[in-house]
Amino acid sequence: MQTYDLIQKTRRKEPLTEAEICFLVDGFTKGVIPDYMMSAWMMAVCCQGLTTEETSALTLAMRDSGDCLDLSTVGGVTVDKHSTGGIGDKTTLLVAPIVAACGGYVPKMSGKGLGFTGGTIDKLESIPGFSVTLSEQEFLKQTREIGCAVISQSGNLTPADKKMYALRNLTATVDSIPLICASIMSKKLALGADCIVLDVKYGSGAFMKTAEDAAILAKQMVDVAKLAGKKCRAVITDMNAPLGCCVGNALEVEEVIHLLHGEEQNRVTELSLALAAQMLFLSGKGDIVQCYRMAEQALTSGEALVKFGQMVAAQGGDPHITDHTDLLPKAACEKIVTAPQSGYIRSIHSEEVGLACLELGAGRTADHPSIDYGAGVRFCCGVGDAIEADAPLCTVYGSTQELCDRAEKRLLDAIAIRKVPPQKTPLIHTIIG
Amino acid sequence: MQTYDLIQKTRRKEPLTEAEICFLVDGFTKGVIPDYMMSAWMMAVCCQGLTTEETSALTLAMRDSGDCLDLSTVGGVTVDKHSTGGIGDKTTLLVAPIVAACGGYVPKMSGKGLGFTGGTIDKLESIPGFSVTLSEQEFLKQTREIGCAVISQSGNLTPADKKMYALRNLTATVDSIPLICASIMSKKLALGADCIVLDVKYGSGAFMKTAEDAAILAKQMVDVAKLAGKKCRAVITDMNAPLGCCVGNALEVEEVIHLLHGEEQNRVTELSLALAAQMLFLSGKGDIVQCYRMAEQALTSGEALVKFGQMVAAQGGDPHITDHTDLLPKAACEKIVTAPQSGYIRSIHSEEVGLACLELGAGRTADHPSIDYGAGVRFCCGVGDAIEADAPLCTVYGSTQELCDRAEKRLLDAIAIRKVPPQKTPLIHTIIG
Repeated sequence: MQTYDLIQKTRRKEPLTEAEICFLVDGFTKGVIPDYMMSAWMMAVCCQGLTTEETSALTLAMRDSGDCLDLSTVGGVTVDKHSTGGIGDKTTLLVAPIVAACGGYVPKMSGKGLGFTGGTIDKLESIPGFSVTLSEQEFLKQTREIGCAVISQSGNLTPADKKMYALRNLTATVDSIPLICASIMSKKLALGADCIVLDVKYGSGAFMKTAEDAAILAKQMVDVAKLAGKKCRAVITDMNAPLGCCVGNALEVEEVIHLLHGEEQNRVTELSLALAAQMLFLSGKGDIVQCYRMAEQALTSGEALVKFGQMVAAQGGDPHITDHTDLLPKAACEKIVTAPQSGYIRSIHSEEVGLACLELGAGRTADHPSIDYGAGVRFCCGVGDAIEADAPLCTVYGSTQELCDRAEKRLLDAIAIRKVPPQKTPLIHTIIG
Repeated sequence: MQTYDLIQKTRRKEPLTEAEICFLVDGFTKGVIPDYMMSAWMMAVCCQGLTTEETSALTLAMRDSGDCLDLSTVGGVTVDKHSTGGIGDKTTLLVAPIVAACGGYVPKMSGKGLGFTGGTIDKLESIPGFSVTLSEQEFLKQTREIGCAVISQSGNLTPADKKMYALRNLTATVDSIPLICASIMSKKLALGADCIVLDVKYGSGAFMKTAEDAAILAKQMVDVAKLAGKKCRAVITDMNAPLGCCVGNALEVEEVIHLLHGEEQNRVTELSLALAAQMLFLSGKGDIVQCYRMAEQALTSGEALVKFGQMVAAQGGDPHITDHTDLLPKAACEKIVTAPQSGYIRSIHSEEVGLACLELGAGRTADHPSIDYGAGVRFCCGVGDAIEADAPLCTVYGSTQELCDRAEKRLLDAIAIRKVPPQKTPLIHTIIG
């Protein structure tokens, strides 16, 4: 088998066999196939696509490039959740305790934030004392006993994906549906949960710009999961505006705790309950309506908050946080951004908000590889709200006044105010699977 | 400027500016842009194409990556000829002396054979004593005095092309019209002739499988040459069967000398005269009909043979060769291949013939990097000829009887004999420019 011929085949849209795809993935992971051949092949994939069978073979070859977790000692049906990433998306921190409170098992490994989208791990690390590195035994034990654990990806899981992702990031081969699908699903399959619920975002703040593209990706991922013997469903959701009122690590944890008190419902709880219901449904806890009610009950009763506190305590964090969010880190400076005119919030450009938060120090960049956990934005209004001129739009938090001033500018550009209210778009577009 | 963004643009079919293309070519030649980025970009070019403006900018950037020859001391209009490569194509060895005999100037640099297509340089090196390495001064002087010189590519000409070609050869990015165009034309432009005639082949033994694809490539090359201020024409020719009766280095030189004696006309002389006429026409020697007659006169009168002898002598070869082809190297063994049945020669598969000759030792492979100059095939018949069972089809030449036996098998597979004669196809399909 010659790498050259396999590149040529993909370039000519001739499908590769399972053995040929394994040859590529193994060879690249072991360093036998050089970067320049793999980047050419991945660009051919970006331009010419792969069949569902090829995408499935690629996913499994990537899964098998490293270790796979054995979750059998958890002692029940395990369920994983994955979001394709969005600004202000803190749903993992809600759904894990909600599902655990309903008797589900959520062993979750998350990634660190990349670029302008925040990572769940970074959010959790803003909690004083919280540890995102547990041994495999501790991770399984906590899942078994509490029902949920959220840790950082560790061990030799999907080394092929790590190498391929790094190369894609350098060669403009990131936004390819088969490559995104294989990257996400190889990790999910290596983690070994019985059921997987996917939150596939579309819109200005997401990889997929349209609901149609998101649905294609979602369908691909669900098909691959099913071929690998997993139960899987995907929820297609709107990421045209940031999710919830806070963007930034400690600010988002504060919002999560506030919502877990169960006194307020917004788009974050709407999405979290929808996802939790799907997770419980796949776990066999009842029909979808029953599961939704169960999740809602766990949220409004405060049971999910208790689970959250148990998880924080088990992972070394300060459990008082659930009632004292002032224990979370705070930025040194803040600034209130006011509306330049009266009208309706027409749109809030997610990607721009993400970039503003990145500049504020809420994410990693080449210039500042460490995170200011207190940095970010808290919105006082959302898309569709009426606003008066000079009324507060949001508060920005950063380490210096200069950083806050710069973020203010960027945010004013990101928030469009118009005379006419915008059309309401549903948060949840479709459910696939 | 970021390489990533330029790859992304090409992937999205957004045209690059001249400055952006220079940035890519310069960066890659200097080693600043790594192989894995360039291979991704070139694969994007293969899949998405380039505009004529982009192809032109790429060609010029590649030309300017190294030295350019100054042919002004030749003292007349210089004309170059390039063939995209074919089995048994020995036209350079005919057109250079024909054009020189008519007062034209042909300073020609040629490549060594790659894979199954033979190189002009290898053919010339089969002449005892012939040197294909002249200094620039010697090269210009010989062109000025004799009218033609054929040497091996030397000096720091188009280093970008050398690097890009090596990478394309490893990453299945060879057969792309803009990349082939830029590779060929950057070299032609760096060589600096005033006029360029291109022989663009199509068929089983060529890069371009159809006349339509060959015409697209030819149009692209002619457009780029004209944008660079050169006179240029392209002849689209059939490469479905080997050109002429011999394939193999010394065998082809023998055929050339035989044809230069002017006593026989076949498809090789037909193509050579057509190309020579175009070269003389672009050099301003008359209208195309006059130029054709001039070329034909130079061939049939033996004047071209005299020029060929002068060139051989000037480059250190034995000039007696023109009357004593038995001075050429001979293979140790030979075998006559006979027709398995009666009928008409329907087709001779060029690529298969090329591969048979490669196995016989007529070309370089990883296993035998040196050439057996006497090895090859001499056909006794051509496409369309009637043949009786057991009559000779061709003779194979090789260093051992075993090699000849193996080649016999391959050739019998390559030659199709049918009851009905094939439709005649013209050698010259169209002329572009």
